[in-house]
Amino acid sequence: MQIQPEIGDIVAAAERIIKYAVYTPLLESSHLNDLCGGRILIKAEPLQRTGSFKFRGAFNAISQLEADARDGGVVAYSSGNHAQGVAAAAQILGLSAVIIMPQDAPQIKIDNTRSYGAEVVTYDRYRENREEIGDQISKARGARLIRPYDDPRIIAGQGTVGLEIVQQVKELGLTPDAVLVPCGGGGLLAGTAIVLRHGLPDTDIFSVEPERYDDTRLSLEAGTRQGVDVTIPSICDALLAQTPGELTFSINRRLLAGGLVVRDEDAMLAQRHAFSRLKLVVEPGGAVALAAALTGKYDCRGKTVCVVCSGGNVDAHLYSEILQSG
Amino acid sequence: MQIQPEIGDIVAAAERIIKYAVYTPLLESSHLNDLCGGRILIKAEPLQRTGSFKFRGAFNAISQLEADARDGGVVAYSSGNHAQGVAAAAQILGLSAVIIMPQDAPQIKIDNTRSYGAEVVTYDRYRENREEIGDQISKARGARLIRPYDDPRIIAGQGTVGLEIVQQVKELGLTPDAVLVPCGGGGLLAGTAIVLRHGLPDTDIFSVEPERYDDTRLSLEAGTRQGVDVTIPSICDALLAQTPGELTFSINRRLLAGGLVVRDEDAMLAQRHAFSRLKLVVEPGGAVALAAALTGKYDCRGKTVCVVCSGGNVDAHLYSEILQSG
Repeated sequence: MQIQPEIGDIVAAAERIIKYAVYTPLLESSHLNDLCGGRILIKAEPLQRTGSFKFRGAFNAISQLEADARDGGVVAYSSGNHAQGVAAAAQILGLSAVIIMPQDAPQIKIDNTRSYGAEVVTYDRYRENREEIGDQISKARGARLIRPYDDPRIIAGQGTVGLEIVQQVKELGLTPDAVLVPCGGGGLLAGTAIVLRHGLPDTDIFSVEPERYDDTRLSLEAGTRQGVDVTIPSICDALLAQTPGELTFSINRRLLAGGLVVRDEDAMLAQRHAFSRLKLVVEPGGAVALAAALTGKYDCRGKTVCVVCSGGNVDAHLYSEILQSG
Repeated sequence: MQIQPEIGDIVAAAERIIKYAVYTPLLESSHLNDLCGGRILIKAEPLQRTGSFKFRGAFNAISQLEADARDGGVVAYSSGNHAQGVAAAAQILGLSAVIIMPQDAPQIKIDNTRSYGAEVVTYDRYRENREEIGDQISKARGARLIRPYDDPRIIAGQGTVGLEIVQQVKELGLTPDAVLVPCGGGGLLAGTAIVLRHGLPDTDIFSVEPERYDDTRLSLEAGTRQGVDVTIPSICDALLAQTPGELTFSINRRLLAGGLVVRDEDAMLAQRHAFSRLKLVVEPGGAVALAAALTGKYDCRGKTVCVVCSGGNVDAHLYSEILQSG
């Protein structure tokens, strides 16, 4: 069992990434406020380098590799956002990167990962085990495996999202009632929850997952890690974890107020609102927390709610269909 | 002839709008840098309240109306972005607003203008004169006309874009070689140019216009205001001015380094890059300055160039077509 990161690790991560990561804005729309009946503050991580929050953790982890580990480069498995984060961070730091991605990952994620100089290896998400492929490549090449969420350095890096939120709401003189965060393996949640407990102890934090991929919600209710069937299709490609991470869940079970679930249609509705009112491109999985606010899964009436939009890497063709499906 | 605004008017405008306008981020993409061969800093005004920079000038102007002028409300003519800016500012300040918009304005601009509580009156862009309709409504209702660009309070408000750019590049320790700004009537350019001459005296500022709507370029070359044929279709609905403003041109002829022109296809290319790499929704007219950088109309190689993306109000259907037309 790895050690849980603490607030000091997240502050240190923020110092490491400051020159390379975007301090993303907290956006607001009077129209979305009216729709939700409260004040909705949107942390816009699609504007982050590589188009999602994943760059934060990847850079924090890779920049801490010991000198003798750098020659073998890094390897990662990812549905696409961690892939781009690792590839971009490795490129900046001068390391080679091999990324294992599902064959059916969005093309934009595969293309962008390659554009950061990484070698992409694809696998069949329904038949092959990405962890095994990662271990093989790691051993064969002496490459360090950069896990997508179950790593204290990754969690600390993603926690810088929470650090910025705390700073930003304090500048506005606000104390949010709740923070809603998209949840795959739970790394962004865990890091953000650690910061919030420290900086906004009265604010509730909720995970938001796609329907049928609600392993974190089920696990929070059961008190132990639960798995889901990952063969069911979902539009939220970034959030299709089978179980919560061991380390992330040990943090999240202690700090989360609960788990929310939204349908694919809800995520698409949120994407359309982000397009028309925020001018922000959000991918389906990145939009689930906004969806929870818009559909009343979290009742925002009379409240101040911070919503994380976690990424914006979506293929033009799918995005066009979603925009016109409303 | 109205008095040209000065730097102090723009600083005062920034103080007036600070509680209501978004201090928009300066975005950067390593991929766009590589494509242009320089360092491209993108001022993201689609993230501004109402989805374009126009809110800045509208709020600055309306908030200065004398108490006895408030009862009659305001009236404005606009292809859509000034419309939304005026409607939203009037709503915040508690004034009624009538907006005169072309029948063929993007539906999102008409819908959003109404959503801010304004009454929308449509006219035929090819047969009717919007200034005359504005004067009639102004007289009939005692409403103050808020002009889209030829007003020192509007220019000062739009100049806050330049003020933020100067602050942001100084924080980055950079001095841009050039700033490229989309140009309709020239208000954003004039305000920004006044600030740049003061804060970045060695930086060139260029107008960017759509092909066949290059009235500012032609006027800069002739030294006097020139007109263009406004019956020719263009995708850049926000930039279809017939001539430069009298006041804006008196500023721009003195301060601009020159005028650039891009094709509709160039604007659409820039929109696709903003989608895939910046996750920013940009409307056609809002993308012309980025287009000038991407197509080499301004040669960015080895340079630091700030590009203003001025707005993001585009209909979902058209945007979908543009995304898939590459």
